[in-house]
Amino acid sequence: MTDISLHTPYPASAVAAWDFRTDVAVVGFGAAGACAAIEAAETGARVMLFERGSGSGGASALSGGEIYIGGGTDAQRAAGFEDSSEALAAYLKAAGGPCADEAKCDLYARESLAHYEWLKAQGIPYRGNYLPGKHIEPTDDSTLIWSGSEAAAPFCDIAPPTPRGHVIRHMGWGGGRPLVDLLEARARALGVEVVTDARAVALVRDGERIVGLVVRIDNQNRFVRAERGVILCTGGFVMNEDMRRRYCPETLRLSSPIGDQDDGSGIEMGMGAGGDAIHMEQFFTTCPWTMPEPQACGVLVNRAGQRFINEDCYHGRVSRFAVDQLGERVFLLLDNAHFSQPLDLAGMGIAGTGDTWEEVEAELEMAPGTLSATMAFYNAHAREGADPLFGKRPPILTPLDQGPFVALEMHFRDSFFSFFTLGGLRTSVDGEVLDRAGEPVAGLFAAGRTTSGLPAWGHGYSSGMSLADCTYFGRRAGRRAAAG
Amino acid sequence: MTDISLHTPYPASAVAAWDFRTDVAVVGFGAAGACAAIEAAETGARVMLFERGSGSGGASALSGGEIYIGGGTDAQRAAGFEDSSEALAAYLKAAGGPCADEAKCDLYARESLAHYEWLKAQGIPYRGNYLPGKHIEPTDDSTLIWSGSEAAAPFCDIAPPTPRGHVIRHMGWGGGRPLVDLLEARARALGVEVVTDARAVALVRDGERIVGLVVRIDNQNRFVRAERGVILCTGGFVMNEDMRRRYCPETLRLSSPIGDQDDGSGIEMGMGAGGDAIHMEQFFTTCPWTMPEPQACGVLVNRAGQRFINEDCYHGRVSRFAVDQLGERVFLLLDNAHFSQPLDLAGMGIAGTGDTWEEVEAELEMAPGTLSATMAFYNAHAREGADPLFGKRPPILTPLDQGPFVALEMHFRDSFFSFFTLGGLRTSVDGEVLDRAGEPVAGLFAAGRTTSGLPAWGHGYSSGMSLADCTYFGRRAGRRAAAG
Repeated sequence: MTDISLHTPYPASAVAAWDFRTDVAVVGFGAAGACAAIEAAETGARVMLFERGSGSGGASALSGGEIYIGGGTDAQRAAGFEDSSEALAAYLKAAGGPCADEAKCDLYARESLAHYEWLKAQGIPYRGNYLPGKHIEPTDDSTLIWSGSEAAAPFCDIAPPTPRGHVIRHMGWGGGRPLVDLLEARARALGVEVVTDARAVALVRDGERIVGLVVRIDNQNRFVRAERGVILCTGGFVMNEDMRRRYCPETLRLSSPIGDQDDGSGIEMGMGAGGDAIHMEQFFTTCPWTMPEPQACGVLVNRAGQRFINEDCYHGRVSRFAVDQLGERVFLLLDNAHFSQPLDLAGMGIAGTGDTWEEVEAELEMAPGTLSATMAFYNAHAREGADPLFGKRPPILTPLDQGPFVALEMHFRDSFFSFFTLGGLRTSVDGEVLDRAGEPVAGLFAAGRTTSGLPAWGHGYSSGMSLADCTYFGRRAGRRAAAG
Repeated sequence: MTDISLHTPYPASAVAAWDFRTDVAVVGFGAAGACAAIEAAETGARVMLFERGSGSGGASALSGGEIYIGGGTDAQRAAGFEDSSEALAAYLKAAGGPCADEAKCDLYARESLAHYEWLKAQGIPYRGNYLPGKHIEPTDDSTLIWSGSEAAAPFCDIAPPTPRGHVIRHMGWGGGRPLVDLLEARARALGVEVVTDARAVALVRDGERIVGLVVRIDNQNRFVRAERGVILCTGGFVMNEDMRRRYCPETLRLSSPIGDQDDGSGIEMGMGAGGDAIHMEQFFTTCPWTMPEPQACGVLVNRAGQRFINEDCYHGRVSRFAVDQLGERVFLLLDNAHFSQPLDLAGMGIAGTGDTWEEVEAELEMAPGTLSATMAFYNAHAREGADPLFGKRPPILTPLDQGPFVALEMHFRDSFFSFFTLGGLRTSVDGEVLDRAGEPVAGLFAAGRTTSGLPAWGHGYSSGMSLADCTYFGRRAGRRAAAG
């Protein structure tokens, strides 16, 4: 009997009987899978969606439901922000750093407004208003927030700054769940046949073409014939420690994987079918150090007492640079005017206090003239509205000179450094899984964190980029797969 | 007709006739391939070695012929250094950082002395003496040099420091060429059949087993049957810009790939056969900033005027941290007592000078109190023999306070930042290529930079690690392949 394995497609010739027949088989019911299914079904194709859990959700449902959208949306215009597809493209490419997929950046920038309209047409509600300030997610039901590093150096010099995080109308954190619920409802209304508690365990190949799936249901292998294509939307590999050890070992230092059942099975199946996996070392991380909000005015230093980034960047960019520092922790420095008790969740304890920065320095057992000199320099320039080292900007740039002072410890392993993986299958803008020669693997598609997409580079992540990628390129994969 | 491709093994059933038959086929004639061939031939197996160039060499011949060996060699003992396999293992694991292959580190540490004897038995001459100081390669024919970060923090606290770079007896730089020549002579003496100008273009598979190769000779495809195994020793992928863009894009910022024909073809063939490729983002880089030697006493700062590493580490570790810094360049700061004209090769120009560090700072257009404060702090502590920030140690730690002062620019793209890739196929300690489930791909072996091995992590590289890996694990691959 032929083995059934994630690592190698199962030969169609060994399939005795097909248990299911469909045109398009989607694997994974997060936002990417839902959007792929919706678009495939819109073409009239038969669509089946297999989800290993008991319902829709995936990592998307754990998110804030924030989608990175720009180019001049209603919410942007109503709040007086100008944006353009050129500015959006420039930002996306800068945020992708050395890993940017320029074709995906350009296309998404051109289509972002239309994609926003599509989301609304699926029933996603948006209040349409702008919420000023620095937020991880809105605490109310507002739409538009700053969700990236748009207004911070060097990005503010690359593209005119504007907020682009568009959040589903939903009171408080956790808009991802209702977002997926609405997409699920839409998919079901279009006739997508959803099979839950159905774990994909292998692709099926006939010659060079992927023609189906093996799915584990009720402890039995079920064979799914997908006449037009299989779309892998199973998320990343953050829950697979063995894969992380081989491809993304820096994350082993961090405390808190974020994911649902993101065990890399889709990436593994795609690679087994000849797909290329790229930028596998890339990951997003963040520690919720900007909450309560006044703490976002803090200064971060490494164990040498040095700053290392303009702290007005997106909290995840700051956190990503933090974990690059030598040692196992960094310190968030605050004065009495800005300190609040950090979130319990953050796991950030007080490492040192003092009536002067010199005293804090001493409590942290740093050499005299390190942290204190950093803060003297910082404050002197902050009073002038300048940060000559990293280009931090007012109002987040503000002197921290009203003692007593405090240093909060952000420990990579013991604080809440949440993270997920960004590397994955290389795909065309139509979601075709590409092999190492850059050619499509016939019949195989992927979207979301199973792929390397818009959020390609951990140091450039902005909130909403992954859902933008999941929803938009999920749609394209669905449409392309249905075309056969 | 079936396509012949690096990306997919050619089916044995499609081979009309075998042009060559051998027990073991080795691909690539650098140090790894030579050692694999020697050991395979020692067992009595028929061995053929295919090299795409016109002779032996590979990247090994471009090296200094330095091999990382420890545990208490004759040269170490004669110079009064103590070493142990435990200390060597601890150093190798620390140097491998998050990418360390512990099994390879432990095994090599245990076998390092025996491997040294084996190298001598192949005819590699060693003078046996120790050359003090800081060298990239010995300028005379000395044997033992400091070739890593053994005496520098944090490594000096992880394992008792001792030099371990063992260099072939050879006057001046470039010992890699005679090293490979001697290994070639040994391989030929053992009856290895060497075919040059023969480029491997595909593996041949029969069922699940790799049984041969397709080799391009005189513009024709030749089919090689390898009864017991194929060993891929074709080097890394530093010469393949497309692969670098997909797997190691940070290197696109650097100036000078070091390699022979390291186009990743072995990695590609191995992946196509189901092999796992790991740590593909890792690379070695160095700029020859420690030459002339007094410059090794310099201080490196980033564009914010901050130090970022103890500069007494191995020059490659320092350089690797340098290219992590924000911006496109770092500065090497020297005083009149330590400045010499840098090597032309290094491409390091003078970016600023001054009678005080404040003047240098101004010439570099850094804010007052950045670079100058860094140097005031550094000098104050250096006079006491201390570096509270990074643990740099005397005698390399020395005040830089004898003006005039200079800042040399090390520009990632315009200076000579040489680099090569460290990621590659995942292999067992016996050189078996492992698939993504950790199982050997039957009949397929690899060694050297086609694999991820001892030098797994760019930030921990030490000179001689790659040749240690090539020679020792090349041998093991040869022996294991010959065993069939």
